[in-house]
Amino acid sequence: MRRVAIIGVGMTPFGEHWEQGFRNLVVEAGVRAIEDAGISGDRIDAGFVGTMASGRLIGQEHIGALIADYMGLNPIPITRVEGACASGSLALRQGLMAVASGMHDLVVVGGVEKMTDLGVTEVSDILGGAGDQEWELFLGATFPAIYALMANRHMYEFGTTEEMLAAVAVKNHKHGAKNKYAQFQKEISMETVLESKVVASPLKVFDCSPISDGAACVVLAPFEQAQSFTKKPIEIVASAQASDAIALHSRETHSGLKATKVAAKKAFEMAKLSPKEINFAEVHDCFTIAEIMAIEDLGFFPKGQGGPATLEGKTGLSGEIPINPSGGLKACGHPVGATGVKQAVEATWQLRGQAEGRQVKDAHIGLSHNVGGSGATCVVHIYKSL
Amino acid sequence: MRRVAIIGVGMTPFGEHWEQGFRNLVVEAGVRAIEDAGISGDRIDAGFVGTMASGRLIGQEHIGALIADYMGLNPIPITRVEGACASGSLALRQGLMAVASGMHDLVVVGGVEKMTDLGVTEVSDILGGAGDQEWELFLGATFPAIYALMANRHMYEFGTTEEMLAAVAVKNHKHGAKNKYAQFQKEISMETVLESKVVASPLKVFDCSPISDGAACVVLAPFEQAQSFTKKPIEIVASAQASDAIALHSRETHSGLKATKVAAKKAFEMAKLSPKEINFAEVHDCFTIAEIMAIEDLGFFPKGQGGPATLEGKTGLSGEIPINPSGGLKACGHPVGATGVKQAVEATWQLRGQAEGRQVKDAHIGLSHNVGGSGATCVVHIYKSL
Repeated sequence: MRRVAIIGVGMTPFGEHWEQGFRNLVVEAGVRAIEDAGISGDRIDAGFVGTMASGRLIGQEHIGALIADYMGLNPIPITRVEGACASGSLALRQGLMAVASGMHDLVVVGGVEKMTDLGVTEVSDILGGAGDQEWELFLGATFPAIYALMANRHMYEFGTTEEMLAAVAVKNHKHGAKNKYAQFQKEISMETVLESKVVASPLKVFDCSPISDGAACVVLAPFEQAQSFTKKPIEIVASAQASDAIALHSRETHSGLKATKVAAKKAFEMAKLSPKEINFAEVHDCFTIAEIMAIEDLGFFPKGQGGPATLEGKTGLSGEIPINPSGGLKACGHPVGATGVKQAVEATWQLRGQAEGRQVKDAHIGLSHNVGGSGATCVVHIYKSL
Repeated sequence: MRRVAIIGVGMTPFGEHWEQGFRNLVVEAGVRAIEDAGISGDRIDAGFVGTMASGRLIGQEHIGALIADYMGLNPIPITRVEGACASGSLALRQGLMAVASGMHDLVVVGGVEKMTDLGVTEVSDILGGAGDQEWELFLGATFPAIYALMANRHMYEFGTTEEMLAAVAVKNHKHGAKNKYAQFQKEISMETVLESKVVASPLKVFDCSPISDGAACVVLAPFEQAQSFTKKPIEIVASAQASDAIALHSRETHSGLKATKVAAKKAFEMAKLSPKEINFAEVHDCFTIAEIMAIEDLGFFPKGQGGPATLEGKTGLSGEIPINPSGGLKACGHPVGATGVKQAVEATWQLRGQAEGRQVKDAHIGLSHNVGGSGATCVVHIYKSL
């Protein structure tokens, strides 16, 4: 396998883009990434794009071809990959394999979703297609309900409290307030979270990531060539993906994600690193409970200690292991197909020292963790600066 | 790049599977392929699946995870890829890169679509998402209309006749009649085609491939290990993909597909072969005109000569270059995501000498050609027996 590095990154602000269509968003992010790489578009020889539900959200499939066309990249191959909310990381992983295999050299990887053109009820139904449509959604279990079941189980097993969940939201909004690409650039208080309207007990509005539009993009190159493009190539030293039962009722546990554990184990083996050597992580906090499970399942904290660690500030910007410096899905927003690629963009900015007010000190190794559905897919990447 | 071979294949019959769901179809094809490879499922270490529009057709996204679960393959990674009607070939291509890169060893590649649970009008609308939703479908151009425009242009430029188009359908039904997996196992006459109801002039019902359910699957292995699994490994000696403008109005020509030409050129270069060395080809005959354009753009016949060549029988089972021995999309059926993988299954059967009544004599090298939408994506694979 050839080693692979990120040589350019770009994204749109995440949020409600009433004035922009799906096509514009991905072109904006793509052009920024290609410019950031300092190359002209005709050097790119393949692309991959993560999108979860463009068919239902905007009536358009065949997204790879659409993007090749609108980015002026014809006739290069661009392929869409989908793994629900992990679609972006899967695109990154396919891009990595395309370069690692020697099939392609300069590969553009995008993630995009345009979600705000439909109403919340319709979008909830569409997102339900990330779980088991026949055995969960059809019976009324939308995603807040599914994660609420996991939250209740986590509270029952480990004494996790609503304050601990709220502490995730408070921290991520604090980080997001320093990120000009974030949907919510505003700090919130513990009271705001705890007093917000219940969506599916114990999860309240402020425990949930929002519905968002946005796109993110990275440019990959063989590591050996990367330094001819940039002084600060970011190597992807591990890429691991795992699956678990799509429906909650078939899982071994409900207080953690087995797919996270399996993918993390593989990723750490591939990178020859341990959780202690990671300087920061972007994890999948679609709901506050998801971040608590993630930091435990990734090995940053012992099982059951994710809640207390968060409440004690260990996951803040200057804590033991800064989690979600970007603001996470919670504050940055969650255009589902874009999220995994945005995590790679943030990791690159952090490792280059370009993360402005939210810069993690001495960041040399970062990790991203992206979950599809309620945990049936998990993708972990590890990034390293020179 | 490591060399890659197919060591097992399997498929469901294509047709209207009222009694089977999406999940059952893919499990049936997958189990057949894994059994055909003579391995147990726990040897498989990754998977890719092509599906075009499961979100709109059955309300389910996150198909990779669903399949990992229902095939009992957790926790291995399975990823869905989508490129409209070329989704299956794209899955094959990702599987190939996963093995070629050294990231995975034994990889299962599936294609599946369940289309007959909705009405024809709704399915036409969904398939329209393979073209340009904003500039074609929204204005009323469904796929028969789009291909009819190309057919008219081809007739205008080269004198192609309705009889020549019909000859494609007659030939493919003749082949399909010898394929127990085909949706239509019945020969038809030239009169049947010419007298059938006009869908979009000059295309009639019998110029069009049907709406179908079905799944197909192959198992890939590193070529060096392939002979330990099977006496007849089939090497994939080329995989090439190209893109073109998604909408017809932005293309350079309407009497051929540029993406086919670009992908074919790359594939022949990669395999160090010329069109003359190919013993048979499975090409994308979603409409009869599509096969005529394909056999020209792939280099089997000079531009404009595809129609006369077909009428003269040069593309029949014992012709110069047998085209669509399986019966093609026309007679075998076209469950869109499954088609590209079915082409690989047919190529394998032909190269192993297992194609029963439709066996091409002395078949050592085969080619498959899979188109997404009206030609915005094209994927060409070349297969070789030992």
